Amino acid sequence: MNSRMPGSPDATSLPDFAAVREAARRIAPHVHRTPVVTSRTLDRMTGARLWFKCENLQRGGAFKIRGAANAVLSLGEEEAARGVVTHSSGNHGAALALAASIRGIPAWVVMPEDAPRVKRAAVEGYGATVVLCEPTAEAREETAARLREETGAELVHPYDDARVIAGQGTAALELLEQVAGLDLVVVPVGGGGLAAGTAIAVAGAAPGVRIAGAEPAAADDAARSLAAGRRVANPPGRVETLADGLKAPLSERTFRALSAGLAAIVTVDEDAIASATRTVFERMKLVVEPSAAVPVAALLAGALPLPERPDGEPARVGVVLSGGNADLDRLPWNRVRKGVG
Amino acid sequence: MNSRMPGSPDATSLPDFAAVREAARRIAPHVHRTPVVTSRTLDRMTGARLWFKCENLQRGGAFKIRGAANAVLSLGEEEAARGVVTHSSGNHGAALALAASIRGIPAWVVMPEDAPRVKRAAVEGYGATVVLCEPTAEAREETAARLREETGAELVHPYDDARVIAGQGTAALELLEQVAGLDLVVVPVGGGGLAAGTAIAVAGAAPGVRIAGAEPAAADDAARSLAAGRRVANPPGRVETLADGLKAPLSERTFRALSAGLAAIVTVDEDAIASATRTVFERMKLVVEPSAAVPVAALLAGALPLPERPDGEPARVGVVLSGGNADLDRLPWNRVRKGVG
Repeated sequence: MNSRMPGSPDATSLPDFAAVREAARRIAPHVHRTPVVTSRTLDRMTGARLWFKCENLQRGGAFKIRGAANAVLSLGEEEAARGVVTHSSGNHGAALALAASIRGIPAWVVMPEDAPRVKRAAVEGYGATVVLCEPTAEAREETAARLREETGAELVHPYDDARVIAGQGTAALELLEQVAGLDLVVVPVGGGGLAAGTAIAVAGAAPGVRIAGAEPAAADDAARSLAAGRRVANPPGRVETLADGLKAPLSERTFRALSAGLAAIVTVDEDAIASATRTVFERMKLVVEPSAAVPVAALLAGALPLPERPDGEPARVGVVLSGGNADLDRLPWNRVRKGVG
Repeated sequence: MNSRMPGSPDATSLPDFAAVREAARRIAPHVHRTPVVTSRTLDRMTGARLWFKCENLQRGGAFKIRGAANAVLSLGEEEAARGVVTHSSGNHGAALALAASIRGIPAWVVMPEDAPRVKRAAVEGYGATVVLCEPTAEAREETAARLREETGAELVHPYDDARVIAGQGTAALELLEQVAGLDLVVVPVGGGGLAAGTAIAVAGAAPGVRIAGAEPAAADDAARSLAAGRRVANPPGRVETLADGLKAPLSERTFRALSAGLAAIVTVDEDAIASATRTVFERMKLVVEPSAAVPVAALLAGALPLPERPDGEPARVGVVLSGGNADLDRLPWNRVRKGVG
């Protein structure tokens, strides 16, 4: 991996397309080649032809196992034996725990005290140790740093890690193999790991295909950063959105990848996220978490610029349904007060 | 079809295997070949190796389009032009409406006044006319008979119809093509159309494979009928179960098919149904209606006799996930007062 190469200690280095292909080969025995599904109803509602890459049906219930497995399986024997540590509000923590259990090494996962029950249970179910902390970025990073010192474990950041980004790119690589002739791929944007990996995979495998990101209006640092041409933080204070997987800010590394690779980024509000989540449950019969519904919300709102095809047919759009770890006791259409369609 | 053949006006006639194969050919352009999914978690929880036939991802959200489409596409031109009528608490009504819209003929669907909103909306969404009636078997049949007289429409019964049974058998036919070496196929039992079609399909395509039924304890007429060797009705009064697709009693026709074809039938209580529904949402990320979770509940309870394999490996079990038209405003784990795991 670029980030591990001698002479390349740059903290903003990105994997290249070869690293994405290598990640695909490395993780293939351990992850699902997830199905791609279509829906006439969603096509009609959006005016596009949609192919949904079902990472909600992935092991661990989200695409995150791709990056985590690539990182864990990239470690040398000695390094691996000391284990891995991360901080994560949920899916990456579970994914790293699962990846560590596949390799048979210890894992520590720092989680905010207010993480959804289902996500904490998933981490513990894979045999990792959960270490709770205050729900602030500082507390998370301090706790993870302390664990690294105490255990010698390798930090596997949820997204600011070239190994992780390369792994996340394998979802788009598969999608491009499974569906020919896409015009656009839409991904949700949180910290930017999936979007960065997607940009690198698509640029390498199908350079004519455009990439768009969608993020919650309540955590729109990516949209503001790309508009400003430099990283802009979320406002101080807690970020509140149903799409709890998308609260994290871009890193310099992912910002660089998104600046180069994204044709557009759009934001959606909380009602739209809740409504889109319900639409996927009701019309597609798939359980998705609100973060996964953010690109669907953007499409349903007509907020995404759809490429015009020379043949006049509707745009062919791939959508990464990023995860299915919804809290079933607090489904979003029971949480948003206003009507949600 | 047997039931339509001159000299065979027997109201209990069943389709043969050739009719199931013919149905598969007839409906193929109009229905999905639904995917089969597996789950390591469910395998671990049940001690079997499970393959789930995802009829929740079928057009109309349930297997019912198979039988309805077979019936509608079997009609002669003149007969078809007068339209079709049925009574159905839900999925069959939507399926017949969809099948009629595919052929471009009118459809009338008699529904009880208390049918779930989502199911009524589905029927109307396909362009059929909903006719409401009191929620009793008598009112349903009277209303349907009146509509037949007024319109000349052909009655397509939800399950007591050889064309419908042949169509429902195509789900198992596909499953047997998709998964080799099954020991057992488990289906939910309501009126018995799916179970009867499955029995005929499996006997023809893979005669060594056993078939088991699962039904709600609150609507256990099939279990009691098979035990008694004759049809036994549900107790008088309303049948109340979360599995609202499985309230209907066997007909003589389906009773005969189940007597000949089912190796076992087991019942599950309401808590088990609610809990199994949640398990499928949470662990498999699939939206299923409670009726579809009934076989899963039976497997989770260890209630089904699993065939022992000569190789000592876990039994290989196919499960038909019959539908996904859950009422998302009233999910079962919010409805059962007792804890549901």
